[in-house]
Amino acid sequence: MNQHLQALQQWLNEQQLDLGFISNPVDINYFTGFYSDPEERVTALVAFPDHEPFLFVPALSIEAVKLAGWTYDVFGYLDHENPFQLIGDHIKAITANPIRFGIEKDDLPVVRYEALLSQFPQATFPADASRFIEGQKLFKTDDEIALMVEAGKQADAAFAAGFAAIKTGVTEQEVVAEIEYAMMKQGVMHMSFDTIVQAGQDAANPHGGPEKTALKPGELILFDLGTNNKGYMSDATRTVAFGQVDAKSKEIYEVCLEAQLTAQAAIKPGITAASLDKIARDVITKAGYGEYFNHRLGHGIGTSTHEYPSIMEGNDMEIQPGMCFSIEPGIYIPGVAGVRIEDCVHVTDTGSEAFTHTSKDFTIFN
Amino acid sequence: MNQHLQALQQWLNEQQLDLGFISNPVDINYFTGFYSDPEERVTALVAFPDHEPFLFVPALSIEAVKLAGWTYDVFGYLDHENPFQLIGDHIKAITANPIRFGIEKDDLPVVRYEALLSQFPQATFPADASRFIEGQKLFKTDDEIALMVEAGKQADAAFAAGFAAIKTGVTEQEVVAEIEYAMMKQGVMHMSFDTIVQAGQDAANPHGGPEKTALKPGELILFDLGTNNKGYMSDATRTVAFGQVDAKSKEIYEVCLEAQLTAQAAIKPGITAASLDKIARDVITKAGYGEYFNHRLGHGIGTSTHEYPSIMEGNDMEIQPGMCFSIEPGIYIPGVAGVRIEDCVHVTDTGSEAFTHTSKDFTIFN
Repeated sequence: MNQHLQALQQWLNEQQLDLGFISNPVDINYFTGFYSDPEERVTALVAFPDHEPFLFVPALSIEAVKLAGWTYDVFGYLDHENPFQLIGDHIKAITANPIRFGIEKDDLPVVRYEALLSQFPQATFPADASRFIEGQKLFKTDDEIALMVEAGKQADAAFAAGFAAIKTGVTEQEVVAEIEYAMMKQGVMHMSFDTIVQAGQDAANPHGGPEKTALKPGELILFDLGTNNKGYMSDATRTVAFGQVDAKSKEIYEVCLEAQLTAQAAIKPGITAASLDKIARDVITKAGYGEYFNHRLGHGIGTSTHEYPSIMEGNDMEIQPGMCFSIEPGIYIPGVAGVRIEDCVHVTDTGSEAFTHTSKDFTIFN
Repeated sequence: MNQHLQALQQWLNEQQLDLGFISNPVDINYFTGFYSDPEERVTALVAFPDHEPFLFVPALSIEAVKLAGWTYDVFGYLDHENPFQLIGDHIKAITANPIRFGIEKDDLPVVRYEALLSQFPQATFPADASRFIEGQKLFKTDDEIALMVEAGKQADAAFAAGFAAIKTGVTEQEVVAEIEYAMMKQGVMHMSFDTIVQAGQDAANPHGGPEKTALKPGELILFDLGTNNKGYMSDATRTVAFGQVDAKSKEIYEVCLEAQLTAQAAIKPGITAASLDKIARDVITKAGYGEYFNHRLGHGIGTSTHEYPSIMEGNDMEIQPGMCFSIEPGIYIPGVAGVRIEDCVHVTDTGSEAFTHTSKDFTIFN
């Protein structure tokens, strides 16, 4: 039984649950190595405190489950069958009268919660598997970190493709096209999120996407991108100059970079998430741009680009080895320019190591 | 108030509900014209039987809501605030003691259902908004069909890009790269699903994706793709020959084509979904390949590629004008080849019109 599945079983025992019902496809992959987007169909991992787990999937996925290396039971269902009745029967064959259920409350929709209740009217839900899983995912194993190191290398290659596409008149969307095309040609079929390329004033909106805005010399260009490597994500941001930019743009770049480097250098076991945010924020505030850094410093990363720890004010969580998160200060001045610089790191016993290594020095492309 | 929102209000009245709570981002877009993937943040449309609706979104999305043309109230929340307490307060300002709630049971996760209940402990959920919405979406308005016609043209352009990439030694994944690159260069930034290109025996697995398999003459190549045009999807499949293929491949192509054309020609108001499936299946069964057509004939399409009506055995739903769905018979012979041919159509008063027009005649690329 793999490390993740063992931890799930241990949690079921600690919480005195009769079973765990895992429904989120990303989390099923985390525990089983089997990933599938089942769309409207039902897929579930059912685990027990003292019995082997089973997977329940659409019948057409049974072969894929076996190919993924799953060695425990797998049960299928056909479209005309009632999946929750079958799941109920499989559960009852293992434990006749389960009462204490650990479901993923962040994931399970009400319609399926009611379907599960219809099979087990006495079910109670005393512990939330979502909270357990987000706690587990805080700490990455060496195998997981190896996948993220590879994803980081892919992101570095994506930056290179993006920088090579910088040219007067090319649109932000066309640069995105070049980046994702280069990735696919290398066999990287999924980015971890929609690639962001923003030039000049567009970059002052940290929630915007690539537009039909044409690149022109004299502007900063922001690239925020990442890849999905076998279910593990990379995420990094670089802001570069297209030709000579004005003194203000250069200045906010250098301030943002100092904030990023200072916070990244401060990462070590025992420091709190809030302290890291404050270290970066202080640099930017001191330089007079505090009001333009309007988001948290970073987010956890792993099987998604939005997990724990959240690197923000008010989060007193202590950073520990194995945690993975971004350090991404930004300065966005409406109508002028936007800068963001981001690496994701994994925490080591003494500090941290970044997943991406594309230069963060102020760089001019001509 | 737009047509969709009017229908929602009418449903609330018919069901004597005190409010409707719409949580699925795609459905929020359907009713409001505002789309955003809020990731872990909360977004909701709250509608009332006799009062104007409001949108509740992360604070950073308020501007985007206004830009999307939403003219009713929009309320925001910050990351440190409790969204359901705020939603509760906004609701109570409109209706003091709501009891009958219409939530989207297919979408709302248990954790949010419980958060809503904590604000309204007396809430009941007598009618499921998911069922109402899937019924509404069965029928497309002229505006929606216009968006889907445009999406269909994009899919035709994608086929052209894919066919142009056929060359000995190029991999399936590289052909996908060429297709999606061409689309992005035209400003189509999102496909409606991961593009499928499968050559030779790979196409015999209707649930597989593009691999590193190199194209070679003498094989059929299957392309299944679509685009997302402002929230409305296209989806179509073509199977073409790379050079001369064997007689068997040509034969199954012609059988599949006859099934596709016969079923598509039979579409008219009043015919049942099951009858359409049977018409196509009979052609294939008669030719001796029934066992190799192992999925339903088609699925509804609109704001997603998996909605109603489902064109399958057992579905006695009568086809009506405004419905949009696929007709996609397939013949998959393991170890030999796979063929699928698909157009999506919208039903008219007298028949149907396809969204895609790439030739379905047996075509050889050299």
